[in-house]
Amino acid sequence: MEALDYHTEERRKAEFDLEEMKIVWAGSRQNYETSDRMAHTLRKAAHAWKRIIELRLSEEEAHMLRSYVDQPAFTDLHWGMFIPAIKGQGTEEQHEKWLPMAYKMQIIGCYAQTELGHGSNVQGLETTATFDPQTDEFVIHSPTLTSSKWWPGGLGKVSTHAVVYARLITGGQDHGVHGFIVQLRSLDDHSPLPGITVGDIGMKFGSGAYNSMDNGLLRFDHVRIPRNQMLMRVSQVTREGKFVQSDVPRQLVYGTMVYVRQSIVSDASCALARAVCIATRYSAVRRQFGSQNGGPETQVIDYKTQQSRLFPLLASAYAFRFVGEWLKWLYADVTQRLQANDFSTLPEAHACTAGLKSMTTSVTADAIEECRKLCGGHGYLSNSGLPELFAVYIPTCTYEGDNVVLLLQVARFLMKTVSQLGSGKKPVGTTAYMGRAQHLMQCRCEVERAEDWLKPSVILEAFEARAFRMSIACAKNLSKFSNPEDGFSELSPDLLEAAIAHCQLIVVSKYIEKLQQDIPGKGVKRQLKILCNVYALHLLHKYLGDFVTTSCITPKQGALANEQLRLLYSQVRPNAITLVDAFNYTDHYLGSVLGCYNGNVYQRLYEEAWKDPLNDTVVPDGYLEYVWPILKQHIRTARL
Amino acid sequence: MEALDYHTEERRKAEFDLEEMKIVWAGSRQNYETSDRMAHTLRKAAHAWKRIIELRLSEEEAHMLRSYVDQPAFTDLHWGMFIPAIKGQGTEEQHEKWLPMAYKMQIIGCYAQTELGHGSNVQGLETTATFDPQTDEFVIHSPTLTSSKWWPGGLGKVSTHAVVYARLITGGQDHGVHGFIVQLRSLDDHSPLPGITVGDIGMKFGSGAYNSMDNGLLRFDHVRIPRNQMLMRVSQVTREGKFVQSDVPRQLVYGTMVYVRQSIVSDASCALARAVCIATRYSAVRRQFGSQNGGPETQVIDYKTQQSRLFPLLASAYAFRFVGEWLKWLYADVTQRLQANDFSTLPEAHACTAGLKSMTTSVTADAIEECRKLCGGHGYLSNSGLPELFAVYIPTCTYEGDNVVLLLQVARFLMKTVSQLGSGKKPVGTTAYMGRAQHLMQCRCEVERAEDWLKPSVILEAFEARAFRMSIACAKNLSKFSNPEDGFSELSPDLLEAAIAHCQLIVVSKYIEKLQQDIPGKGVKRQLKILCNVYALHLLHKYLGDFVTTSCITPKQGALANEQLRLLYSQVRPNAITLVDAFNYTDHYLGSVLGCYNGNVYQRLYEEAWKDPLNDTVVPDGYLEYVWPILKQHIRTARL
Repeated sequence: MEALDYHTEERRKAEFDLEEMKIVWAGSRQNYETSDRMAHTLRKAAHAWKRIIELRLSEEEAHMLRSYVDQPAFTDLHWGMFIPAIKGQGTEEQHEKWLPMAYKMQIIGCYAQTELGHGSNVQGLETTATFDPQTDEFVIHSPTLTSSKWWPGGLGKVSTHAVVYARLITGGQDHGVHGFIVQLRSLDDHSPLPGITVGDIGMKFGSGAYNSMDNGLLRFDHVRIPRNQMLMRVSQVTREGKFVQSDVPRQLVYGTMVYVRQSIVSDASCALARAVCIATRYSAVRRQFGSQNGGPETQVIDYKTQQSRLFPLLASAYAFRFVGEWLKWLYADVTQRLQANDFSTLPEAHACTAGLKSMTTSVTADAIEECRKLCGGHGYLSNSGLPELFAVYIPTCTYEGDNVVLLLQVARFLMKTVSQLGSGKKPVGTTAYMGRAQHLMQCRCEVERAEDWLKPSVILEAFEARAFRMSIACAKNLSKFSNPEDGFSELSPDLLEAAIAHCQLIVVSKYIEKLQQDIPGKGVKRQLKILCNVYALHLLHKYLGDFVTTSCITPKQGALANEQLRLLYSQVRPNAITLVDAFNYTDHYLGSVLGCYNGNVYQRLYEEAWKDPLNDTVVPDGYLEYVWPILKQHIRTARL
Repeated sequence: MEALDYHTEERRKAEFDLEEMKIVWAGSRQNYETSDRMAHTLRKAAHAWKRIIELRLSEEEAHMLRSYVDQPAFTDLHWGMFIPAIKGQGTEEQHEKWLPMAYKMQIIGCYAQTELGHGSNVQGLETTATFDPQTDEFVIHSPTLTSSKWWPGGLGKVSTHAVVYARLITGGQDHGVHGFIVQLRSLDDHSPLPGITVGDIGMKFGSGAYNSMDNGLLRFDHVRIPRNQMLMRVSQVTREGKFVQSDVPRQLVYGTMVYVRQSIVSDASCALARAVCIATRYSAVRRQFGSQNGGPETQVIDYKTQQSRLFPLLASAYAFRFVGEWLKWLYADVTQRLQANDFSTLPEAHACTAGLKSMTTSVTADAIEECRKLCGGHGYLSNSGLPELFAVYIPTCTYEGDNVVLLLQVARFLMKTVSQLGSGKKPVGTTAYMGRAQHLMQCRCEVERAEDWLKPSVILEAFEARAFRMSIACAKNLSKFSNPEDGFSELSPDLLEAAIAHCQLIVVSKYIEKLQQDIPGKGVKRQLKILCNVYALHLLHKYLGDFVTTSCITPKQGALANEQLRLLYSQVRPNAITLVDAFNYTDHYLGSVLGCYNGNVYQRLYEEAWKDPLNDTVVPDGYLEYVWPILKQHIRTARL
């Protein structure tokens, strides 16, 4: 055996043009290749920043470069949270004062919101900012242990400043949580300023992953800041200590959330694609069982069990890519409307991005681990790339809105939409389907043969009817409670399921819409259709209980869908490798011995092993103290 | 806030006696407390061994002690694989020669089976052992890169010997894979013997976990060993090089597999219990939202979403415990029969343990990660104990039989059992239910009200009917293929589902049997019944598609089960903390800040953070080189 040219063979099987698929995958990421090349030569944030300055990169290009450094770092928060917070919540005066320094990194900032005792419930934060009219200052204070700021990235060891969220108190009155710019460390010697206790919160999941990030803790002991360091775009405190709300609509906050969450959906697709690329390539290299007449064993990718676990994830990577693209459009649309003071689509856009953030990140986290399992024992080695990909990905399910909390928000929105159905108020956007209530309650799936499941209209109707009927069932059960909040709480597990059904429908419908757009290459289009069907039908099989108990489909139709799914796997098989090549990851970025492009997996595993420091010596440290006395039966008298 | 005495409050809620539940949980583990106390004072294998000698521990006690060291180490393989392999596959002469040395650890051994290119397919191993009649030796050789031994624990840096599996070749003929005792390293200076290349395979998942184990690689360049180092209980090679099979039945191998796998099921319950204990305690400490009139917020354990994710896992820990106990009995029974040359129950026992190994370890791996998510952001900290518990647990899904491969074996056994139904051969043991074919195909669930789902007979029949009908459906679909192997391969995803249904039935039925035994305390019995129902009904809800499409239950009955499940969660709630206290884990063994017994979580998180080496200095290493030049705008000229 050795160097396997499995790639040529696999490429030959493909029924579409790779370069065309790359274009579809890359979508609007124009700067991809330029930044890609550079990022490979840069490892640390300082190096990255040096290059960003030297190359006079645009903000977007700089962001792309940092993402290719591919290691969580304080800069993520400085650029991704600190600066946006000032931009979004600060006045023009504050922009003029702080943003130039931040853009030049003369100050480095983080986003100090969550506390030891409070995460999701931002309104419950305990840190206080009490206005002192005598000195025209706010006194920032941590009244309890649980009010210690906890988790902010970049806070532990690096940031000089933070946007700190604290309860605003003026004249003894609590005005809820607001943001304040607070300097944490000296710009001369980096030591914490008086009254400030700051440090790192310690080791996290994995050996790499977020351990490159200095997630921090922070306590304030009556720290004073000037009044003009409260972020005052939406609310102000006057010189006299009067609390004033400006006419800037508070909904703007939701615009930012839509932005952050849509970018998380795009990232989910990238992370999932990475894991799928590794597992797919290795599945074509790995052989096990099935040797006939001494010939080679079967490639594990040819096993139906492998296909039935892997190909739905491959399809999901494409599906999330396309729904991510659509969310970009949605964000642009919402932004435009907000600027025109049109808030009408905001609640729906907010619910939709919250739900998709939750659904795509939960699926991706599980999928990375599933890809690891699909690589068998070798997937457990760090150099498979999968353990650290998992460790670095999973916080996404918690930050920017815990995934369960977000789904409950979606459910609440769905229940509200259902309750308004009779009122003449038409549901919009991704809930528009609810406007066809009567049809969706009565329609019957007309599938008679397996191939009927290939029709987009059939799939769409089944997913719409299922989502709608689950929402209606929840609404009916809710109406039995005299106190709606009690009902919502009691039925919350069912409401989560209804929310998931709704989110899955969005992804399916956006994929179907994508197929109606211009797609380069007939082969590409055909393959994307196959993946779309795999995506939809694997969900239908996985959530068969939903579809059947709501009478959207019959058990017989469920069995036909399953039959069709198996046929689709056979159609994906010859294209699988080329479909992951379209993701266009370099070996360096992929960072996986198992997923390397040329498939020379075993040689590389063997070479990598010898690089382990344990192999620097023949006899391991500790042999003389701990092993030799055992072997020589001296253990009883050994000094250990 | 600070020290929370949540425990007293939670204990007060419990409706059963804790000490009684501890007895049920502990089952037959008599030596628990003795070994527990000792294990806490010992950390390294050498310390453990010293104590084992000094205390003259029995083999069972020594095993218990090592398990409390709670860190994978070379000793696991020496005691768990090397010695048992010699015992099981060696002749009496070989026992006399090797076992005394091994028992005294004058030699340290490992189990060198898997290769770089071969895991599950043991028959495909490539290492060769060629008999040389001239010298009366075997020549052990690694003919290819992929034949490198890869993964064996203890091989990398420590073992002096190995049981090596290799293809036996005599007179040019290949007699398949057999075991050979091979010395790897000098007993004087630990250097590898001539012809042997040995080293560590490198970093694995997580920061701790299996990185304390020297999983190794091993290559042979025509290494010679005496003929009497082939393990010859089952097959022999004579002085002349003749290959002879003894009359020792080959089925004995399966006996060992039954043993190893039943112990993995017991371990699954322990690992799951550990994760559930952490998540349950923290869920009672953590509060979020729901504060009324400035009072404390709601304990997250009171949320139905939290309960619906957590309590099924708590129920699973108990369910796996009881099925593990039963498997111990099964192993004893099989052993007794084997000694009496009765092989009749072996295939069923083998399929049953394979299936339960697969099902319980897959569920446990996922459940540990789910428990981590149930702890919100703080679950991602290493000191929550959950990241490393996950990292150290997941290999269990791959070793001792890949979980998917094992389920396919179960499926094969089920199909065979179905095919023999008409033949008068009665299905035995856990497949006995298949003997009631006619009834199970026709029976209809008689649930009319939610509480009907509490009857064990109703639950059992639903699970039996579902498992049986799924097997029958697979068998029917298989019969449509002219080549049964093609059919098995094509339908393998469906066969996996049928196998899972069968395994779930076993766990449910063994739990119901357990409830019919003597159980100390009425409160305990009532609580165990509730958990049994939670276990069964959460599966019914999760796999609703199976139950409904096979017409075992109606959609309406599924909804009633779901309703009953919610009521059960309310009954578990007041007992939850005390139910996990019954696991009897010390804080030290649990190793989790979030799961600490007294609930003083925030104080401990805060204290632990300061112990991180990053906090040893105020200004981090690298500040002057990498941060200061950025802040001072000197980055362009900085030497990085």
